Amino acid sequence: MKLVDLNCDLGESFGAYTIGADEEVLGCVSSANIACGFHAGDPLVMARTVALAGERGTAVGAHPGFPDLMGFGRRNMSLTPDEAEACVVYQIGALLAFARRAGLRLQHVKPHGALYNMAAKDNSLADAIARAVSSVDNELILLGQGCLLDAARRAGLRSASEVFADRAYQRDGTLVPRSREGAVIHSRDAAIARTVRMVEEGRVTAVTGEDIPIQADSICIHGDSPSALEFARSIRSALESRGVTVAPLSRVVF
Amino acid sequence: MKLVDLNCDLGESFGAYTIGADEEVLGCVSSANIACGFHAGDPLVMARTVALAGERGTAVGAHPGFPDLMGFGRRNMSLTPDEAEACVVYQIGALLAFARRAGLRLQHVKPHGALYNMAAKDNSLADAIARAVSSVDNELILLGQGCLLDAARRAGLRSASEVFADRAYQRDGTLVPRSREGAVIHSRDAAIARTVRMVEEGRVTAVTGEDIPIQADSICIHGDSPSALEFARSIRSALESRGVTVAPLSRVVF
Amino acid sequence: MKLVDLNCDLGESFGAYTIGADEEVLGCVSSANIACGFHAGDPLVMARTVALAGERGTAVGAHPGFPDLMGFGRRNMSLTPDEAEACVVYQIGALLAFARRAGLRLQHVKPHGALYNMAAKDNSLADAIARAVSSVDNELILLGQGCLLDAARRAGLRSASEVFADRAYQRDGTLVPRSREGAVIHSRDAAIARTVRMVEEGRVTAVTGEDIPIQADSICIHGDSPSALEFARSIRSALESRGVTVAPLSRVVF
Amino acid sequence: MKLVDLNCDLGESFGAYTIGADEEVLGCVSSANIACGFHAGDPLVMARTVALAGERGTAVGAHPGFPDLMGFGRRNMSLTPDEAEACVVYQIGALLAFARRAGLRLQHVKPHGALYNMAAKDNSLADAIARAVSSVDNELILLGQGCLLDAARRAGLRSASEVFADRAYQRDGTLVPRSREGAVIHSRDAAIARTVRMVEEGRVTAVTGEDIPIQADSICIHGDSPSALEFARSIRSALESRGVTVAPLSRVVF
Repeated sequence: MKLVDLNCDLGESFGAYTIGADEEVLGCVSSANIACGFHAGDPLVMARTVALAGERGTAVGAHPGFPDLMGFGRRNMSLTPDEAEACVVYQIGALLAFARRAGLRLQHVKPHGALYNMAAKDNSLADAIARAVSSVDNELILLGQGCLLDAARRAGLRSASEVFADRAYQRDGTLVPRSREGAVIHSRDAAIARTVRMVEEGRVTAVTGEDIPIQADSICIHGDSPSALEFARSIRSALESRGVTVAPLSRVVF
Repeated sequence: MKLVDLNCDLGESFGAYTIGADEEVLGCVSSANIACGFHAGDPLVMARTVALAGERGTAVGAHPGFPDLMGFGRRNMSLTPDEAEACVVYQIGALLAFARRAGLRLQHVKPHGALYNMAAKDNSLADAIARAVSSVDNELILLGQGCLLDAARRAGLRSASEVFADRAYQRDGTLVPRSREGAVIHSRDAAIARTVRMVEEGRVTAVTGEDIPIQADSICIHGDSPSALEFARSIRSALESRGVTVAPLSRVVF
Repeated sequence: MKLVDLNCDLGESFGAYTIGADEEVLGCVSSANIACGFHAGDPLVMARTVALAGERGTAVGAHPGFPDLMGFGRRNMSLTPDEAEACVVYQIGALLAFARRAGLRLQHVKPHGALYNMAAKDNSLADAIARAVSSVDNELILLGQGCLLDAARRAGLRSASEVFADRAYQRDGTLVPRSREGAVIHSRDAAIARTVRMVEEGRVTAVTGEDIPIQADSICIHGDSPSALEFARSIRSALESRGVTVAPLSRVVF
Repeated sequence: MKLVDLNCDLGESFGAYTIGADEEVLGCVSSANIACGFHAGDPLVMARTVALAGERGTAVGAHPGFPDLMGFGRRNMSLTPDEAEACVVYQIGALLAFARRAGLRLQHVKPHGALYNMAAKDNSLADAIARAVSSVDNELILLGQGCLLDAARRAGLRSASEVFADRAYQRDGTLVPRSREGAVIHSRDAAIARTVRMVEEGRVTAVTGEDIPIQADSICIHGDSPSALEFARSIRSALESRGVTVAPLSRVVF
């Protein structure tokens, strides 16, 4: 039986500010990456989001980011590895407490935004993140790309490789930067077909035409607009109609 | 054998800012209340402080405060019970992660500053804090005064009653407010003698002259000046010379 | 000719977070209270909001709040008068710079949320705010209620008295607290009629039945929902149909 | 008559945290760069620092930094030019208000830490800063190095070139990075002799041996340790004994 996880960022509201349709998207995904208060989220939002995920049976993970609420964690910051490690330990712990409170087990950690993107290409930052994760709980799964996956293995953690339904890939398996032509797959049907193939065959066609191998343990889902949500549902039903089972990460990776 | 705990606030530095002589004071106390990043402390400071406490064998506790770094958590804030509960869960979790990373067990929680003072007199806030503590780990000890102790019992938590060496008490066992005449015991010898008596006999003379009962599970120590540190050492040696054993909270309360 | 100002809070978005329909509400009001980054708003939002108000010809004012983004400035905080004064000076200055950049003159200052409510009843806090305003620019108008108006006079500032269309008043001219029965006027027609009378006659019927005097220099408008915006337009057109001119504060008070 | 300015960062304390010996250093410098609350400083500290500088007759300038208190503004952050411009406008405004309150005129702007270093090498960031300065007050002097000076000229601002007494220069006039051998001049006498020559002759010997031109409008002084303060006093007296007059920037550049 083929299994794949669908993951989505959740709990990104802050104080009086609301972002995301958390209730709706929870019906579609198997794993929730919950913001931990540095780039988004606040303690009350975390409490509510974890409780909601628990009610729906969605697996919960920590979604740590840079300490930059104003930039939503999307701006590169030059933290030392020690600073990055401590920031990730802190945020995992904060979410872990809400998981305990809700009687849930924390399943995974997925870095957010600029922290994710920088760590995917920087072994030293990736190692700092992996050290942070394993120091808190070495049964946590580290979800990401590139260097993060290698760092997880070095730290003795389970890793999960994330793919994107509507993004083009380069020959080396990395994403075509958004700034470049052809970075985004605009055809919904093409995006769904690519995703199904990544999951079933572990292969995708690079932007340069080659067929390349790709590991699709989890598909990143966006739920921040009605059309994103609609797209997410289409992907899920396309996968299920092909006999693929959508399941939380802990059932997908070992 | 008579036992008492000595506790001190630690890890209050932030970024480039240093407060406190953490290394020195660790040699004097048995329990460290470590700031959790809301009113003081940052992830790197927490990592270092927990590691340091671990090396010295001092028991560690979380020291959650209001989200008010500029005010050092000393300004009253009107959080709802739900907000306060979530803020405390968050901060305990953050410290818990650093304790795990250092291979230590979290021993206790002591609220900081305005959160402590308000909760000592407000059942609803005290209950919110106790709920937060017990939801993360019901073996944690809640250290405080007044309503906090009652709330701990209602939540099924162990509580520990804190006393102050150099502060005068009112007839009802509460502190004489700092704004009032006679709030502070200026004679070092008198303060030490009062402390020894609170620990040995469980009694103290109120500012109004009556002899009142008082529970002294832990003595609050300040280490933020050379004279405070010297005073702390005098208290410790006065207690030890009387056969009182200084021991972490987990050995004092059951 | 009868003149009245309509004011609204604007520029409350922050980073990736959007609040309010600023463009729409600017078409309805004569004065904009622009958040200054402490309880809401960020530098980029301030730049855009001030520029937008300038394009529409709406007068701009600073809307300083407590340093509490998580609580949106709605939680009481116990700042000393010196701290409050400095926080208000800081925020007025920040907005003043954006006004200069847009070639605009800052017209007024209206404190936000808990700072507004506390200052309306606390002479010492109100004086701190008035001192802050006059120290930056003594031609600024201080918009508020209660003690704030008295403090403005003591500081030699022009003051403007704000009224609320859909709120009930007590005999002493203060608002019926939201927690009490009858605090909100639910009938739209009644609210509009009351507002017109406050502006034309300077009188309103208190919740206890008495007819009381009230000074209506400016009417507080909310634009945070389609119905609020619709209500605001109804008030404006009711006033204009009675020959009342809607004009910025600087034309209303002297 | 030869004139030179001595500048120093001031007002870097925050809440309960104290950094710097502001009172002592004010006796030595002619221009104070005052932190504006993003990387250091808070409203009360700004009020006090501006007032203190006013009493001593030291010229005041804004010292804006990245929004990163935890990193003290020393960590690189990838802000867009619009974000950087808005952050600088905001901070200048905040300080401007305190200057007005103290009856002082704002003299200059010197970016802090990572913002300074990045802008010295990045025309687009430097232009954003210069635009910010000139939009608030085009009589302000922009103090810095490299691209910042060019950007100031493009924006029609007066610029002032800063030199460092104890740092080695490369052939192109930029500083030898601290990570490299020979970056710091450890001999006090050598540092003082170099500084005097930079001021008198406008020349310095590069680390590679060449004699290069350098513009010394202002010398950066550190006052964060007794030895730094002692060094600053030595530089000042060496300059004065050679007939150089220490004067605020506004008398040095035109």
